Amino acid sequence: MTADPQVLERLYALIASRKGGDPETSYTARLFARGRAKMAQKLGEEAVEAVIEGMRGDPGKLADESADLLYHLLVLWADVGVTPADVWAKLAAREGTSGIDEKKSRPKGG
Amino acid sequence: MTADPQVLERLYALIASRKGGDPETSYTARLFARGRAKMAQKLGEEAVEAVIEGMRGDPGKLADESADLLYHLLVLWADVGVTPADVWAKLAAREGTSGIDEKKSRPKGG
Amino acid sequence: MTADPQVLERLYALIASRKGGDPETSYTARLFARGRAKMAQKLGEEAVEAVIEGMRGDPGKLADESADLLYHLLVLWADVGVTPADVWAKLAAREGTSGIDEKKSRPKGG
Amino acid sequence: MTADPQVLERLYALIASRKGGDPETSYTARLFARGRAKMAQKLGEEAVEAVIEGMRGDPGKLADESADLLYHLLVLWADVGVTPADVWAKLAAREGTSGIDEKKSRPKGG
Repeated sequence: MTADPQVLERLYALIASRKGGDPETSYTARLFARGRAKMAQKLGEEAVEAVIEGMRGDPGKLADESADLLYHLLVLWADVGVTPADVWAKLAAREGTSGIDEKKSRPKGG
Repeated sequence: MTADPQVLERLYALIASRKGGDPETSYTARLFARGRAKMAQKLGEEAVEAVIEGMRGDPGKLADESADLLYHLLVLWADVGVTPADVWAKLAAREGTSGIDEKKSRPKGG
Repeated sequence: MTADPQVLERLYALIASRKGGDPETSYTARLFARGRAKMAQKLGEEAVEAVIEGMRGDPGKLADESADLLYHLLVLWADVGVTPADVWAKLAAREGTSGIDEKKSRPKGG
Repeated sequence: MTADPQVLERLYALIASRKGGDPETSYTARLFARGRAKMAQKLGEEAVEAVIEGMRGDPGKLADESADLLYHLLVLWADVGVTPADVWAKLAAREGTSGIDEKKSRPKGG
């Protein structure tokens, strides 16, 4: 089991394949069956846990909660119709001349 | 600029290189200078925006907010001492015999 | 200016009176003009700040962030059509025979 | 059972009385026993639910989630040492000459 970056792509493909699957045998299929509000809620809840583990500063626990957060983010992407490539493209577009770092320094409004 | 998966690794390396940098010229360096609570706050705020764009269902806006969310997640990882490889390993470990899907179906407790 | 409990009712009445007001002169009227997603976002952001100040444990800062959180909660109530009395009734209904404490101990589902 | 504003004060007093109580018989005592991070997490999770019900726009469900949110906010207050009167005072202080509305219109930074 390698820990290569493609794990997110593989996980996304697995998640997408669960759409319309049996909620009795797959947690992911159950999330799709419960609807988008439930998926968004799970994303928010895992983000809260990541925020709290970030404050506590334990790397192992933050890594665990981040894995949960990424899983639920990918579920929401799959439901809304966002692909990992879409998001990588957004990030890559910020890597240009000025870089994401400078890009982010522009005010975003309230 | 390709939208390959390694964009997260490149972004993480860029972020980590900003630690101790000049807050006047780098937004990322400014975040590090403001401290972990501010980084955790930004992660939480971007997650709220992703939740809301998820509810609204616009793929382009969800991709945008997801890019912001991932950026701030990577900043928190860099500050706490989590690497992308740590998190990919957590996700890969769930890809075993039973798969993340079944793994996630076990109750986590309240 | 007394710090009596009715401050929430007074604040709610003030907020409700700003609906349709001039966004140039009132922050509350500006929130109403920007729409419900922005109000929900502000509630979520202030909750993140309260979570973080809770973790930090400074009573004065938690009180400050809680005041911001309550303000944005009341704005969302006013927009959706919830009154303070509606919520007090929900809380009072839990004060019955078994009490909120026992009520809360029943599992809520995932 | 009246739905008067003092319900928050009564609920806060009940919560505070559970500190050090038996986690087996009281949900609130169990929260105190699990520690502040768990309390902050519950506040964040209930806020996420309120955000989502706000987006969905059902007044009854938003009132329900708001009751849960307020309960967990009061638990955190009790643990950190904030009283309802502290927060009412913060809100009342903003009711002065300029009013909360104008107060809020000043930029907060960040």
